[in-house]
Amino acid sequence: MAKEVSEAGEFAAKDYHDPPPTPLFDMEELTKWSFYRALIAEFIATLLFLYITVLTVIGYKSQSDDKKAGYDPVNDACNGVGILGIAWAFGGMIFILVYCTAGISGGHINPAVTFGLFLARKVSLIRAVMYMVAQCLGAICGCGLVKAFQKSYYNRYGGGANELNAGYTKGTGLGAEIIGTFVLVYTVFSATDPKRNARDSHIPVLAPLPIGFAVFMVHLATIPITGTGINPARSFGAAVIYNQEKAWDDQWIFWVGPFIGAAIAAFYHQYILRAAAIKALGSFRSNA
Amino acid sequence: MAKEVSEAGEFAAKDYHDPPPTPLFDMEELTKWSFYRALIAEFIATLLFLYITVLTVIGYKSQSDDKKAGYDPVNDACNGVGILGIAWAFGGMIFILVYCTAGISGGHINPAVTFGLFLARKVSLIRAVMYMVAQCLGAICGCGLVKAFQKSYYNRYGGGANELNAGYTKGTGLGAEIIGTFVLVYTVFSATDPKRNARDSHIPVLAPLPIGFAVFMVHLATIPITGTGINPARSFGAAVIYNQEKAWDDQWIFWVGPFIGAAIAAFYHQYILRAAAIKALGSFRSNA
Amino acid sequence: MAKEVSEAGEFAAKDYHDPPPTPLFDMEELTKWSFYRALIAEFIATLLFLYITVLTVIGYKSQSDDKKAGYDPVNDACNGVGILGIAWAFGGMIFILVYCTAGISGGHINPAVTFGLFLARKVSLIRAVMYMVAQCLGAICGCGLVKAFQKSYYNRYGGGANELNAGYTKGTGLGAEIIGTFVLVYTVFSATDPKRNARDSHIPVLAPLPIGFAVFMVHLATIPITGTGINPARSFGAAVIYNQEKAWDDQWIFWVGPFIGAAIAAFYHQYILRAAAIKALGSFRSNA
Amino acid sequence: MAKEVSEAGEFAAKDYHDPPPTPLFDMEELTKWSFYRALIAEFIATLLFLYITVLTVIGYKSQSDDKKAGYDPVNDACNGVGILGIAWAFGGMIFILVYCTAGISGGHINPAVTFGLFLARKVSLIRAVMYMVAQCLGAICGCGLVKAFQKSYYNRYGGGANELNAGYTKGTGLGAEIIGTFVLVYTVFSATDPKRNARDSHIPVLAPLPIGFAVFMVHLATIPITGTGINPARSFGAAVIYNQEKAWDDQWIFWVGPFIGAAIAAFYHQYILRAAAIKALGSFRSNA
Repeated sequence: MAKEVSEAGEFAAKDYHDPPPTPLFDMEELTKWSFYRALIAEFIATLLFLYITVLTVIGYKSQSDDKKAGYDPVNDACNGVGILGIAWAFGGMIFILVYCTAGISGGHINPAVTFGLFLARKVSLIRAVMYMVAQCLGAICGCGLVKAFQKSYYNRYGGGANELNAGYTKGTGLGAEIIGTFVLVYTVFSATDPKRNARDSHIPVLAPLPIGFAVFMVHLATIPITGTGINPARSFGAAVIYNQEKAWDDQWIFWVGPFIGAAIAAFYHQYILRAAAIKALGSFRSNA
Repeated sequence: MAKEVSEAGEFAAKDYHDPPPTPLFDMEELTKWSFYRALIAEFIATLLFLYITVLTVIGYKSQSDDKKAGYDPVNDACNGVGILGIAWAFGGMIFILVYCTAGISGGHINPAVTFGLFLARKVSLIRAVMYMVAQCLGAICGCGLVKAFQKSYYNRYGGGANELNAGYTKGTGLGAEIIGTFVLVYTVFSATDPKRNARDSHIPVLAPLPIGFAVFMVHLATIPITGTGINPARSFGAAVIYNQEKAWDDQWIFWVGPFIGAAIAAFYHQYILRAAAIKALGSFRSNA
Repeated sequence: MAKEVSEAGEFAAKDYHDPPPTPLFDMEELTKWSFYRALIAEFIATLLFLYITVLTVIGYKSQSDDKKAGYDPVNDACNGVGILGIAWAFGGMIFILVYCTAGISGGHINPAVTFGLFLARKVSLIRAVMYMVAQCLGAICGCGLVKAFQKSYYNRYGGGANELNAGYTKGTGLGAEIIGTFVLVYTVFSATDPKRNARDSHIPVLAPLPIGFAVFMVHLATIPITGTGINPARSFGAAVIYNQEKAWDDQWIFWVGPFIGAAIAAFYHQYILRAAAIKALGSFRSNA
Repeated sequence: MAKEVSEAGEFAAKDYHDPPPTPLFDMEELTKWSFYRALIAEFIATLLFLYITVLTVIGYKSQSDDKKAGYDPVNDACNGVGILGIAWAFGGMIFILVYCTAGISGGHINPAVTFGLFLARKVSLIRAVMYMVAQCLGAICGCGLVKAFQKSYYNRYGGGANELNAGYTKGTGLGAEIIGTFVLVYTVFSATDPKRNARDSHIPVLAPLPIGFAVFMVHLATIPITGTGINPARSFGAAVIYNQEKAWDDQWIFWVGPFIGAAIAAFYHQYILRAAAIKALGSFRSNA
């Protein structure tokens, strides 16, 4: 909340290092162990993400279900962790998984994040595609584990799959996914901006915490609308294991929405906040 | 919690840099792209703030409403994120939005914060006024999005507007807004104090987190009284879109209260904690 | 979680600076503005602490009361922020208030913390006594504000006063207060240990956050027993404004318990963890 | 979320210091006061961990019990901190206790963590065994305190003991414990990796916070299955004090599961993420 530092000389000397754009195809990275290690880390992280979160969702619904045997209306009605607990499970897992994998793979754990960073030329095309494959496989395995652990409950309680809730149009669901993913990917860009470290030394960058909170906040707001996707791997993995028609019919929303949201966030960060557009047009000031 | 460092020599050598007061009118900043970029960032941040928080409020009320079709008294009574979840939505969004925009616009997202920083001469008059306009426009657009997404529910569940609750006088509401905003703006001043970095190196300054918690805490305490404003843009945007008489009748409380609270916090920080009053009167010690 | 660094040479060269014990009576500090400023900061912080937390308690109880006019059994039963929200209010306020006042007064906001730091010779006797007076006055004013705002509810809902709950003996209540305060003051000592910065550079010291969490945790555990004091100013201020016999009868528990707990924490930190006892007896190793 | 730094030269110059493996038997550490101090710190920390968390569990169950005298169906149904509050109690206590003891004992507070760090050769065998003894004794004393404070409630409400819930097989319980402990110990390894500080300077290492969150998340997910152990000392201490047949019959799950999970996490971190396997086989790249 400090006053904006003058940027009159922003095109002159810089105190930060802007890495060059990543090439679209970087064949050399395929020869490095660190590339395959990153894929393993993304796979394991997405597996753990889906395992913990979907287990929380199913456990909550099984505890508060009034049709189950031995249901106790007084003690069981408010049982379970509640929707607030579910939102914490999603946000908190992203916090710890980004924290754990940031140094190995960059900590995407989400195809929409990978797509946004690809558009900003932070990862190569081949890395982006391989990450998304690893994330989707991890999500399928994570949901599979939950189904194996909760056989009798998994399908009865919706399998943690994302579906448009009754009373909302497809347009609303798509809009909710677009804006929700925008909030997440905008936070990711803000947290990893190289300009940040140089200029804002008064705001230490504990990047994973605000990223986790962004996921937490979006879940609080949009669970009633779509169950909250904002992560195509999460929606795809749950749909594969749950495998019901409604989940597949709505599946496109949870790919198109997050990818559009991530693209807008990448555009907003690169062309508005980082002023790349202005640099291309020449200095705004000299035209004034 | 360390013992106070002696400040006998506080008027002598300083180990921190106190920026000079910002001029009231700084025409030069109008010629810089960074000024307009800051306005865009404030607009987008306030839009996202209102979108996520009001969507959470409406979603909670629609889920726990016992008059809706198909209401299930057992499963739905404890549905929704609860008032605790609503308080998290407000506090958590401020945490991530201050984190994301601090380096671009200072991360105000609140006319009362802008007013407090203006009184402390941290921002110029023209910047303060333009920020407030951007914040109010952003808040209107954020609430408009929620209404577009939740047509049937938005007005039925109060539109997220701030109103004085039954059983409280206007004086109580005004007092609650004044003290609540004082807590927020006092935290903002503490987090951005240049003296802090120099003297308290044992307390790293993760400024956005305590600011977000201040908003969270005030919501826990005053939602039952006024629904908690402490942010005139938030109250104004919701009133414009909701547009009911009661919300407009009480609107003045949510401008007068926060501005008074911010002014007291600015005074407290500048004249008591930073001892500006004492400096003006000459050294307290030499008079003793 | 790193392996213990060898301390064979711990009595030789040190890489940290241990400040000398504060004198019991330091008359010079009475002549400095920073001393009075610290008293003001403690007064205001304790006032805000009681105002926000007791308002949260009263607001919660008034919303979930089934005897109030217009009570709606379905919508109101789970209304309010819950005991979890109350615990957050206490812990979160301590987080932000320690954050805000640490650089001004050390951020005690609690006579038990002041007492523990006095025993460890971190503050002088005169400062300790004056802090406690400022804290108690602040607590009385904070509760007074809540009573002024919630006239009709304040006394009906217990005024936020600490009382031993039915079914617990005085010994249990005292024990709960002793251990609860031990957790808090032990965290305070750990967070402000000068040895920490030097040796544990892998664990940055965001001191106010774990201190706030310690308060949060103790409230989760002991609200059912005593309502959780662990802060004599908080218990005293609420008792003065509530002014009922039961609150006064139990008041001694909320002074004796916290002071004993703080003393044990000071002893544990100074004589066990910092090994002051061993230093006094000569090196343990040379005796082995 | 930054792009992976090239590691072509990872076997050449390193910018971090990898400590040598700890010897299995290090007799010299037995002669140092710091070793016994670490045992005391582990004992006290595990005692406080069990005291606060089990007290929270018992307090919650006693408040929301509809069979107790004077039960009020409306006000008491939603009473207590809820399962979300219980999960916070476990995660939050680990956060503050790791924070407080990391510099003294490494902050294990959990035999599974000690076992994982022993496998990775971070602690000697004798230290590992002594830590586990101290942790189990601390856990017994912590539960004993709760029983002393809550005589009439302790056994009635299950004593906070871990048992397999009805409807889950032993295999599911074991699997839940294995994966849950994997999440925790994987986070511990990530947080304390010496490579981290050197390479990821954009991600400050506030280690105790993600470790506490890992515990919080696992509790949200697996409380419905096993009550969540992931800490053999916690399960053992509660079983000793509760001392019912069912708790003892299931006890092996809460030792075997966490130890397998910790071993997998140690293997994953050392041989996959740190690429120790590849180093042993020769450079992957030169074979490509």
